[in-house]
Amino acid sequence: MDKVIECIPNFSEGRDKEVIEKIIQTLRCRDNIKLLDYSSDEDHNRTVVTFIGTPEAMVGAITDFAEKIYENIDMREHSGGHPRMGALDVVPFVPVKGVEIEECIEIAKSVGAILGEKFNIPVYLYEDAATSLTRQNLASIRKGQYEGFFEKIKQTEWKPDFGPEEVNLKGGCAAVGVRFPLVAFNVNLGTNDINVANNIAKVVRHIGGGLRFVKAMGVSLEERNIVQISMNLVNYEKTAIYRAFEMVRMEARRYGVHVVGSEVVGLVPMDALINTAEYYLQIEDFSKEQILERRIWE
Amino acid sequence: MDKVIECIPNFSEGRDKEVIEKIIQTLRCRDNIKLLDYSSDEDHNRTVVTFIGTPEAMVGAITDFAEKIYENIDMREHSGGHPRMGALDVVPFVPVKGVEIEECIEIAKSVGAILGEKFNIPVYLYEDAATSLTRQNLASIRKGQYEGFFEKIKQTEWKPDFGPEEVNLKGGCAAVGVRFPLVAFNVNLGTNDINVANNIAKVVRHIGGGLRFVKAMGVSLEERNIVQISMNLVNYEKTAIYRAFEMVRMEARRYGVHVVGSEVVGLVPMDALINTAEYYLQIEDFSKEQILERRIWE
Repeated sequence: MDKVIECIPNFSEGRDKEVIEKIIQTLRCRDNIKLLDYSSDEDHNRTVVTFIGTPEAMVGAITDFAEKIYENIDMREHSGGHPRMGALDVVPFVPVKGVEIEECIEIAKSVGAILGEKFNIPVYLYEDAATSLTRQNLASIRKGQYEGFFEKIKQTEWKPDFGPEEVNLKGGCAAVGVRFPLVAFNVNLGTNDINVANNIAKVVRHIGGGLRFVKAMGVSLEERNIVQISMNLVNYEKTAIYRAFEMVRMEARRYGVHVVGSEVVGLVPMDALINTAEYYLQIEDFSKEQILERRIWE
Repeated sequence: MDKVIECIPNFSEGRDKEVIEKIIQTLRCRDNIKLLDYSSDEDHNRTVVTFIGTPEAMVGAITDFAEKIYENIDMREHSGGHPRMGALDVVPFVPVKGVEIEECIEIAKSVGAILGEKFNIPVYLYEDAATSLTRQNLASIRKGQYEGFFEKIKQTEWKPDFGPEEVNLKGGCAAVGVRFPLVAFNVNLGTNDINVANNIAKVVRHIGGGLRFVKAMGVSLEERNIVQISMNLVNYEKTAIYRAFEMVRMEARRYGVHVVGSEVVGLVPMDALINTAEYYLQIEDFSKEQILERRIWE
């Protein structure tokens, strides 16, 4: 595949294995689509799916996937711990290889139009695909959830980007967006003082005056008796992993606290770690073409 | 390709483009073989080729490649700046993916047998394929070169591993070996004092009491007015890049000299750089499965 987009749709069923399998099945054995992972959470009553594919294959895959979701999930009967506004709750597209953000936005719009017209679902475009500033943040769109949308959708500012101007009783609403690959990166500190973690998180993150593409919060790791700065790096190219790491370390010095470790949660783009190695080794003029595996795989 | 071996054969023609192309052509459009690179040096009168392939495809590819070499190159007429003992001078195999050293050694022996029996060439196995300690080092085997081998081959300790016990007049001899992927890594220092570079190189490298898998020498970069520690890391898994880097930095402190940069020359396995990022970020429990590209490509 010369061009690769990643898609991480979330749907509102995390308990009924039979239904989950029926839905997942639509992503198997498709040309130019590769299912990477899916995991269901019973408390959240929600399933997160990760698959990749070519731009051309994306719309067809999501259409079949959505069809099985709308056949099998009824939002009137849904409850779960995770905020949600619809049966197919969110559909984020992430450019992974040889694809620009713009191409992903076109695909998000095509998918939005299909969900709206074919399945009669109100659709909101979010993040890089958003049609207004208030719709960039997924949490703002989803606020009020399925139950609250019957009123929210009547407000002019919450007129959907695609589909009907009333909630689909069975399917709810959907958010379709485009975002950069996210790196979930946590730094562990040699203290059990949650105030230290909270204070550091506050100054490292964007809203606190910190790094532009960092979201951060303090977390207690009870069983290890330490605290952690839990971060989402939402643009690892512009705010590199090592920069977030070194800033946490620098701020921790104020409290005489050391970094005792870190963790990368889930998938991470190779370039994010290669860039870190380049920084610490002070490598001049490195080209990604020098990576042996890239030459083998591409 | 589930299993991948890299092969970097060197042959003794670097000037006649027509001959070079005839030889390279044997590696093109083969099933399960991918030509990555080749470069000819006119002064050395020598061409270095890099290709990868499955274990099954290797022996056939090298056989056809060798046939064109022995047809077109006559060592009696060869001269050049680089040490050489034959038309097909060296054939190193490197395990790259899903292959153990042992499997590469079997392939090296098969290739050695074919060069010996089909082409009537004396063959020496070297490095990890060597049949004695004195044959591990390629430089020791090649010492005396083509011209010197007419006498050298008569010594009991230089009886070939395969093929006749006399030099093939036209084709010379050949060395076939197995080695780990090599990382060429240079560290630049903020001084123009070559003595500093030489002293650091001496203590960092294996023979001087330094790191087990490091070869190093001091080099002047005249045009930049600085010096460099030029290193070959012959086993990046056991002697990591960051360890060699930090040791150079630590030794440089004795002279009040700083590291001003570094460079990776040629191809480098992804793991060597990921491992470096893991060290500096203090990442706990990282799995290579978390690399997004690995999931896409494999």
